[in-house]
Amino acid sequence: MTMAIAIVKGYAVPMAPRGASRAAAIGAAADLMQRQGYAATGLEAILAASGSPKGSFYFHFPEGKEQLAAEALRAGGVGVRTFIDDVVAAATSPGDAVRRIAASEARQLARSGFERGCPIATVTLEMASRSEPIQRAADEAFESWAAPLATMLSAGGVADAEAAALARWAIAALEGALVLARAARDESLVTSLAEITADALDAHLS
Amino acid sequence: MTMAIAIVKGYAVPMAPRGASRAAAIGAAADLMQRQGYAATGLEAILAASGSPKGSFYFHFPEGKEQLAAEALRAGGVGVRTFIDDVVAAATSPGDAVRRIAASEARQLARSGFERGCPIATVTLEMASRSEPIQRAADEAFESWAAPLATMLSAGGVADAEAAALARWAIAALEGALVLARAARDESLVTSLAEITADALDAHLS
Repeated sequence: MTMAIAIVKGYAVPMAPRGASRAAAIGAAADLMQRQGYAATGLEAILAASGSPKGSFYFHFPEGKEQLAAEALRAGGVGVRTFIDDVVAAATSPGDAVRRIAASEARQLARSGFERGCPIATVTLEMASRSEPIQRAADEAFESWAAPLATMLSAGGVADAEAAALARWAIAALEGALVLARAARDESLVTSLAEITADALDAHLS
Repeated sequence: MTMAIAIVKGYAVPMAPRGASRAAAIGAAADLMQRQGYAATGLEAILAASGSPKGSFYFHFPEGKEQLAAEALRAGGVGVRTFIDDVVAAATSPGDAVRRIAASEARQLARSGFERGCPIATVTLEMASRSEPIQRAADEAFESWAAPLATMLSAGGVADAEAAALARWAIAALEGALVLARAARDESLVTSLAEITADALDAHLS
């Protein structure tokens, strides 16, 4: 077997297994950035956690850490969207879906010593105003999370535009509850605040 | 005039004007950390922005950047509380207060190129799980912001425990709206999502 080699930013880069090392870097970045944010997550730490050599990193992410962070937000966004799809499929109402999402978030917060809140909010607050790739990835993620709730609200008789606004609002309310819960070191805030959101959401159903 | 000198961590520290240099460091830290977060804000940048010498810094903040960040959150918290007190005094209902807060936040976001959202949320998400002084300062700030809204809800006939929960929920909803608005680079999200929160809040009045 011969191995393809690319020269990227002065490094000889083995080009196989490409997918695995790219995915490992994204996974490591997503994990570290969820727990400690963008600025605190150095490239060295990402490479150490992913086991990827530096040359391979720049081959996959020629724009560097900013590009990787956008991919990490995208990966986090897809993960949460999959979870919300499952929740919505099982939920009896949009409010019930919000309660189930909150219960899962509260468990994750408590289990992680309050390190793991939203996978993308910290990086969004740090970087959205100064990085368009990160800003766009964050926006797409939040929109993708709202979509299944909007569909559920529409199915409950809410007009499409109002359903979209209410769904976005519910996601925002969950995000805000995570911020206050981390400040309070009290995961029960996530579920108790979500109760209020859930009741307000279901009040819009016809 | 003689000037008092202290020796702190090896630096000769002029002890006057104490209050001014302490306040300048807190102000610089609050400003930088609101815009870029905790990890991205180095001590050198804070000292440069505040015009304080390093020795004076360690005299005022022997625990270093973490202690300064907690003080910066406290200062940001007091500033927002003063603003909320003024809003509540002028508002016709708790929902009206939420709308006014959101309108002000939206203007600040837009004027700052989306750099200035909540003065404490970014640092909270980065650091609350790993710094007790920062976590406590953040929690106290959020609680102090909710208090005037809770008082207003109680005056509107809501039982005290429910009023406290609803007020905290409204603050969380505003926080979440700021996260999504920064992701979307769209300050109108803050006000449109606050409309939903405001209506839901006033629905609890008797």
